[in-house]
Amino acid sequence: MSDVEVPESHPRYESLLTRHRIEAGVEKGITSQQGLIAQGRGEAFDYLLGERTIDSAEAAERAAAAHLLLADHPVLSINGNVAALVPGEVVELAAATGADLEVNLFNRTEQRIQAIAKHLREHGAESVKGLAADERIPGLDHERAKVDADGIYDADVVVVPLEDGDRAQALGEMDKTEIVIDLNPLSRSAQAATVPIIDNVIRAIPNMTAHARQLRAHDDEQLRAIVADFDTEVTLAAAEQAIRSGDSE
Amino acid sequence: MSDVEVPESHPRYESLLTRHRIEAGVEKGITSQQGLIAQGRGEAFDYLLGERTIDSAEAAERAAAAHLLLADHPVLSINGNVAALVPGEVVELAAATGADLEVNLFNRTEQRIQAIAKHLREHGAESVKGLAADERIPGLDHERAKVDADGIYDADVVVVPLEDGDRAQALGEMDKTEIVIDLNPLSRSAQAATVPIIDNVIRAIPNMTAHARQLRAHDDEQLRAIVADFDTEVTLAAAEQAIRSGDSE
Repeated sequence: MSDVEVPESHPRYESLLTRHRIEAGVEKGITSQQGLIAQGRGEAFDYLLGERTIDSAEAAERAAAAHLLLADHPVLSINGNVAALVPGEVVELAAATGADLEVNLFNRTEQRIQAIAKHLREHGAESVKGLAADERIPGLDHERAKVDADGIYDADVVVVPLEDGDRAQALGEMDKTEIVIDLNPLSRSAQAATVPIIDNVIRAIPNMTAHARQLRAHDDEQLRAIVADFDTEVTLAAAEQAIRSGDSE
Repeated sequence: MSDVEVPESHPRYESLLTRHRIEAGVEKGITSQQGLIAQGRGEAFDYLLGERTIDSAEAAERAAAAHLLLADHPVLSINGNVAALVPGEVVELAAATGADLEVNLFNRTEQRIQAIAKHLREHGAESVKGLAADERIPGLDHERAKVDADGIYDADVVVVPLEDGDRAQALGEMDKTEIVIDLNPLSRSAQAATVPIIDNVIRAIPNMTAHARQLRAHDDEQLRAIVADFDTEVTLAAAEQAIRSGDSE
């Protein structure tokens, strides 16, 4: 939080922090025009959700942490909005779970890739993938399919926060365990996920890190029990109910 | 529609048209960074509303048209997103109701004011107010309070599409009849309105024009009956219900 001078006690702290980081993202060439519109869509869904982590999302964040700890090769996919909003937080999650960070953009330009990689390194990332782009996700057009052969292409568990629906579906068809963070439970991305997390990335990523740190004391059998307990359909239905009704679950 | 080459038969016609116009708005310096985020918030609410004009919004558009025809001095307040999304449509509504067009920005810069006025003139506006800025709305800080003495300040009926909550409230306190177009029925702008229209401006403005043309055959007594029939609370409740339930009213 050292890059922001908003007191945590401020009633609109989270909202002001988000605004500040998105503006900085635009200045640094990290956040795109489409990213700003997507940010607005997220704000509206979060508003209806009550700007809080609902119980079903908390359970999804715990299951996601268990998946990451069980994975052979977990990768966190980072786009412009994720880099702008939670750069230090994704670095911490990667460290807590042994995951790679890979920059992956819907509107890919070499300049934005480099700006995002630099931003992540400034926030403590030792290694950032996504620059080689030497493999393709099947079923997507050339530019949007680009991934690293030793990154997302090889991953068994991949976290895709704020992902485009086409790519979320194509990744799901590669038989990866896909963890999606998206505030719209009806989106194709959320629907394609093994673990859909219907929460703001600002809250979801630190929560996943906290769960991962707590679950590290567990053995694989206990982690597999947490994963087996997770119900995708129930999670999506609970989130939709929370958004529609405006009530707690 | 001459500026866009999207066939009207396309299933995503409205969405593609919107995207095209917003992008053009950014290129022309009309749409701000905050405008892009606001556009995204609107998209999310419209998505939940089913991207259609619900019956209660249609009734509000008719009541708004009656208010405009009864007005001594109606004014349409135009911000960056409205100018980008419906430039020709607001010119048509102004012509159909004898209203003035006044550029009014939350983040006011001389450059954006001029770009928007030019854009409106390119879409057929003969006169555009908002450049004099020689009066103030009471209760707002200096920059955000600026209006034209012979425009919004003098108006008895004002249409504020996509208005900031603070300014919508301050205008309401000036005893004007305030017609707000906003996709969030819980927003302070919608709550402050005499006539809240919970609809996409892309649909609302042409609908208001169609109603105004049809209502021009009515006398003042008939128009006053339409205005008297309109119920603000019922309208807001119906829209919230439509968004929450995902069903028709």
